[in-house]
Amino acid sequence: MTTRQTCLDRDAVDPLAGVRKRFILPDGVIYLDGNSLGALTVGARERVRETTERQWGRDLIASWNSHGWIGLPQQVGGKIARLIGAKAGEVVAADSVSVNLFKLAAAAVRAQGPKRRAVVIERGDFPTDLYILQGLAEAMPEVELRVVEPGGFEAALDDGTAMVLLSHVHYRTGAVRDMAAQSARVRAVGALSLWDLSHSGGVLDVELNRDGADLAAGCGYKYLNGGPGAPAYVFVAERHQASLRNPLSGWMGHARPFDFVDDYAPAPGIDRWLCGTPPVLSLAALDAALDAFEGVEVAQVRAKAGALGDLFIERVESRCAAHGLALVGPRDWKVRGGQVSFAHPQGWAVMQNLIARGVIGDFRRPDVIRFGFAPLYVRHVDVWDAVEVLGEILDSESWRDERFQTVSAVT
Amino acid sequence: MTTRQTCLDRDAVDPLAGVRKRFILPDGVIYLDGNSLGALTVGARERVRETTERQWGRDLIASWNSHGWIGLPQQVGGKIARLIGAKAGEVVAADSVSVNLFKLAAAAVRAQGPKRRAVVIERGDFPTDLYILQGLAEAMPEVELRVVEPGGFEAALDDGTAMVLLSHVHYRTGAVRDMAAQSARVRAVGALSLWDLSHSGGVLDVELNRDGADLAAGCGYKYLNGGPGAPAYVFVAERHQASLRNPLSGWMGHARPFDFVDDYAPAPGIDRWLCGTPPVLSLAALDAALDAFEGVEVAQVRAKAGALGDLFIERVESRCAAHGLALVGPRDWKVRGGQVSFAHPQGWAVMQNLIARGVIGDFRRPDVIRFGFAPLYVRHVDVWDAVEVLGEILDSESWRDERFQTVSAVT
Repeated sequence: MTTRQTCLDRDAVDPLAGVRKRFILPDGVIYLDGNSLGALTVGARERVRETTERQWGRDLIASWNSHGWIGLPQQVGGKIARLIGAKAGEVVAADSVSVNLFKLAAAAVRAQGPKRRAVVIERGDFPTDLYILQGLAEAMPEVELRVVEPGGFEAALDDGTAMVLLSHVHYRTGAVRDMAAQSARVRAVGALSLWDLSHSGGVLDVELNRDGADLAAGCGYKYLNGGPGAPAYVFVAERHQASLRNPLSGWMGHARPFDFVDDYAPAPGIDRWLCGTPPVLSLAALDAALDAFEGVEVAQVRAKAGALGDLFIERVESRCAAHGLALVGPRDWKVRGGQVSFAHPQGWAVMQNLIARGVIGDFRRPDVIRFGFAPLYVRHVDVWDAVEVLGEILDSESWRDERFQTVSAVT
Repeated sequence: MTTRQTCLDRDAVDPLAGVRKRFILPDGVIYLDGNSLGALTVGARERVRETTERQWGRDLIASWNSHGWIGLPQQVGGKIARLIGAKAGEVVAADSVSVNLFKLAAAAVRAQGPKRRAVVIERGDFPTDLYILQGLAEAMPEVELRVVEPGGFEAALDDGTAMVLLSHVHYRTGAVRDMAAQSARVRAVGALSLWDLSHSGGVLDVELNRDGADLAAGCGYKYLNGGPGAPAYVFVAERHQASLRNPLSGWMGHARPFDFVDDYAPAPGIDRWLCGTPPVLSLAALDAALDAFEGVEVAQVRAKAGALGDLFIERVESRCAAHGLALVGPRDWKVRGGQVSFAHPQGWAVMQNLIARGVIGDFRRPDVIRFGFAPLYVRHVDVWDAVEVLGEILDSESWRDERFQTVSAVT
């Protein structure tokens, strides 16, 4: 039987235990929302000061060369590539996930020619993925948008399909798609697979090339800990790089951006997926944050995420039994991302009560409380302690207090 | 006759003299490149520390509400609106200039209907403006791109014209377009005017509404001093807000982004021009930087920019006569932006030599040395001293030194 001491014992032998000290974590808080906003690292804190105060403040415009700002998108891309099973020249940091999905989806449709005009996505996927394809179909009337039921994308594949947008890990349930099998099914009909890695990059052992993914985009501010709204990234498999064109053909994606010529010529390789000037302060924070993965293998990260999630489910179902919590999403860690969700009819108030007591998770409508287990800084004992607090809240029904009922702007 | 003392006297009565202390400027440097990257303010330095260390580091995900991150795009937009003659609800900070030009150009073409498909731009405008329209025309084959000779846009207007993209101030020459007259000509044929304010916002007395502009985008990191790659901004005149749709329809532009529904519904007003999650560290720096304009009227800024540029031209033509420098762009400050450019056959080496001696300007191919006079922190005496250094360099031909001949990545 698991005890608090068992958890401490597991932490003592955790190969990632030492990584936690790379993070700055506030006292009195158990942070289980690294799947929404990763924690600040010591390295990122120093790097932001350095970039702002010494580089921008003192060296000003010269910093583009002397401090390597101009190469940051590729440098960050190279660090991310290792975490998602890609080559360094296949990944670049740029813009937001939403903007990158637009670029890739538009490029895929154009490259597929006039007979393949359908783009496929499942209802219930992360909203911005759906919204971006809706906007694309409005802007490019030749695009046929097929929004299908959850789990139903395969039935929508045919020889008119240009591209399928698939979330690797579902943002609400944590369910993991089988990237190898699903990429193969998409490829079998001649379509391209576009993977949203926002909830898997940095926590699962993503293997884009092994699993045959064509295109991907992902988030810099969740498990990569790049800071609020950190730049996102783009992956284009080497085999597609010459044939796909970025419709957002800004100057940073030009082959020779500082020649200031009138005609666009796409950079060779991954650089053409850049568009405008990148937000250097945010990008530098992401670059430094990625160094928290130094010496860490993604297989270790994934295994620990699984263990923490299993522990959480076991403890909730034991400590909080009879309080009406229902597991949402997979029980088996092998098909579960870094987060675990439970439904509770008063989920919103329960989560507000947890937050007030220093256990930070989040809420997703209509009734889901969601907890993320970022393996670089969450300990087994944190999971134990968090469930104890949850149990006390449910036992005492303290969530009924009116201050936990008010809904705020960002959930 | 102007002397160094005259310059000191002018500084002594300059109504903007006190604003300089809001900036952190390195010792031994005369910074004449605020038109490329504005200087760091005291407020931005403190705000970046605060946002990174206290907000992200300590309050983590809760900061989206408790520290107002979610409202930053509108808050920044409101501050910029005052500087460009717009209403607060007509401007929002988002993405890069390049991405915003794509959004606005695509939206304009769609709103104009199938009979108006031409977008017009002049050769020699800022490269990303040209590149973005080229990418748009490739992605939306119904778009007809008309790239005309410099000064020739009016001849390209007809009843098939959807939109004209115009740089308010030319990046290389500093020439200012007559916004009122040119907006009127565009409007007269039923087209929409899209203004790139990158080189005018924060230095000229831009009056978008008075001058009848329809759409605009501009840069956060030049005269607005928002930091390297700071987020850009979008302006949509109120009369067009209901009819234009952002093709990059990401979740931050949704009417209710945190409802997580499947169907996109554009936010009313300017908010629909948001796309993904904004880079908060960079956006917070911009927000704080804009406070350097507190108590400052843009008419004062413009007048001082004119005076500094006039002084520079007068001094260069006097102190550096016979060294082959030729003024590029307007002599009359009323049609000149915040920068002054001179052509010199060895412009690259001359600029490298200047930089090595602490006078920071920049170079634009093929032979242009460019100097920006950001009125919030550049003094008359700085202009005097800079020209003295330039004169010494030209007199001694020290630019012939081989270390000034090497070309670096970013010019």
